[in-house]
Amino acid sequence: MTNRKILLASRPVGMPSEENFKFIESSIPELEDGEVLIRTVYLSVDPYMRGRMSDAKSYAEPYKVGEPIIGGIVGKVTASKNPRFKVNSFVEGRLEWAEYNLSDGSNIRRLNPELAPVSTALHVLGMPGLTAYFGLLHIGKPKEGETVVISGASGAVGTIVGQIARLKGCRVVGIAGSEEKCEFLSKELGFDAAINYKTTPDLFESLKEACPNGVDIYFDNVGGSVTDDVMKLINFQSRTIICGQISQYNLEKPEMGPRVMDKLLKTSSLMKGFIVSDFAEHNKEGLTNLSKWVKEGKITYRENIVEGFDHTVEAFLGLFRGENTGKQLVRVSEE
Amino acid sequence: MTNRKILLASRPVGMPSEENFKFIESSIPELEDGEVLIRTVYLSVDPYMRGRMSDAKSYAEPYKVGEPIIGGIVGKVTASKNPRFKVNSFVEGRLEWAEYNLSDGSNIRRLNPELAPVSTALHVLGMPGLTAYFGLLHIGKPKEGETVVISGASGAVGTIVGQIARLKGCRVVGIAGSEEKCEFLSKELGFDAAINYKTTPDLFESLKEACPNGVDIYFDNVGGSVTDDVMKLINFQSRTIICGQISQYNLEKPEMGPRVMDKLLKTSSLMKGFIVSDFAEHNKEGLTNLSKWVKEGKITYRENIVEGFDHTVEAFLGLFRGENTGKQLVRVSEE
Repeated sequence: MTNRKILLASRPVGMPSEENFKFIESSIPELEDGEVLIRTVYLSVDPYMRGRMSDAKSYAEPYKVGEPIIGGIVGKVTASKNPRFKVNSFVEGRLEWAEYNLSDGSNIRRLNPELAPVSTALHVLGMPGLTAYFGLLHIGKPKEGETVVISGASGAVGTIVGQIARLKGCRVVGIAGSEEKCEFLSKELGFDAAINYKTTPDLFESLKEACPNGVDIYFDNVGGSVTDDVMKLINFQSRTIICGQISQYNLEKPEMGPRVMDKLLKTSSLMKGFIVSDFAEHNKEGLTNLSKWVKEGKITYRENIVEGFDHTVEAFLGLFRGENTGKQLVRVSEE
Repeated sequence: MTNRKILLASRPVGMPSEENFKFIESSIPELEDGEVLIRTVYLSVDPYMRGRMSDAKSYAEPYKVGEPIIGGIVGKVTASKNPRFKVNSFVEGRLEWAEYNLSDGSNIRRLNPELAPVSTALHVLGMPGLTAYFGLLHIGKPKEGETVVISGASGAVGTIVGQIARLKGCRVVGIAGSEEKCEFLSKELGFDAAINYKTTPDLFESLKEACPNGVDIYFDNVGGSVTDDVMKLINFQSRTIICGQISQYNLEKPEMGPRVMDKLLKTSSLMKGFIVSDFAEHNKEGLTNLSKWVKEGKITYRENIVEGFDHTVEAFLGLFRGENTGKQLVRVSEE
């Protein structure tokens, strides 16, 4: 039985391309005691992974050139010498971009397919869901009646942020990059307004109209000029949550922009970067609440699925072209 | 008996000048029941007042053109129809830039000249001291062994921040604009290092050398390119406290600079603007601790005193030329 993996062939400069990745074949070693063999079912591609492809200092260790990309995987146990993981059960973990992974059980968690579709462990009931939960609730601390603006609103994190903000009684305004995405936000997710930043003649004016009481919380996945426009509208004691900066990840030189400190000063406002692991001690609270809201139908989600391991890199690159509405996944094999 | 006041004659564009201010003479009305008459002894000039001279939206109400400037005043009660304030006692409050003020008692507090010189009510035991205290301790939350960098370190707020940080066991690095100021910080206040940003050939390299373990807390009074250099050195989970942006107050057009969001994201860092009144409920705690530290000799201070009401505007303008080491005051009359 052979396995296929995707290695980082070289560090991207600017926008990554197929050439930065390499498929290799390898054999699957014999299971040792305590190990399980996992067949990849769903593979997650996430914008933050671009950061790990650089060797710049960051919260996450850079990927090594010549070694497999590590990311979120949902798989099925096909062989087990670990009593905690039964054959045919589902697991999720940070594993190699590969058709099969070996694990000693320390980097995977068991999934219950009766509670929710297993793919949700890669979004609403996994890292992106917790990212939304912690960023909005633990940093943003929304109060009823406040206005929450979300950039990258139609992505895996943004869609959850907006729905939680609605549950908390906030006015929710999403910024996204197509009519289809905006319609999804307004009609299916119940956002109060959605703005297509690519077609609006003046994003600032559109935001001003959509936020008649200013902006109390800004959940930023995008950065750049979109963020510049939102910052002009922040209220006294506003909170800006920096979750991602996808517009900046592929720049070869850092962009200059309006300095933001004076605005933060004049409004007594907060700006905070974070990573989901900052709140690891609250994971259980987060997953419990998210599961409850999904079960009650208060939070819904959309998956954008590309078929086949061969298209993994393509799916990853598509994130930077804004191709996904909701969570971008690759289906590597059937459940 | 006549009184003299200083009005805002016009809103400054860029650097303020004498022409933006106007001295007028007026008579002092009769005291009504509950009122006191206060002779100004010390008058405080503070960088934040520049902000109130613009009509841009900010945390503080703009001054009105044609009306007196309001600022921190320490004065002596010369007549009283209010039993809480005895003749010859000292008070502090936000009052008009004038030789005499009338007050109904609601905007002044009593001072005890035996506890500390009354002028300290305008700095270490007043607004600037509380600003330092709340910003550093309530936002920055310093831990022993951390590195604290302060811009505008030799001013009324910066000098207190650095000394509190030393009390908390931090490494303290000050940035200031003259050799004399740097010497004051290192030799008199016990800062671990002080950098003259005007003469160092490379501020970033000097900072790197002075902060071998990076920067955990940055207390910013200045902004602009000084802040850009500090931000390159922030550590994981660092805290940047935006207290002032004096380098930006007199710009006619906002400056562009390196975007800071990606750095905050990669380091899970916080940036927070504030105003002292955000923490008003903790004023008593702050003044109690500051008084104790001053009494114990753990915190010291320097005053830069200009003599005479006529020189008030000059003293204010001097703030933007970096003329003061420590707190800038005007002595309007003898105690």
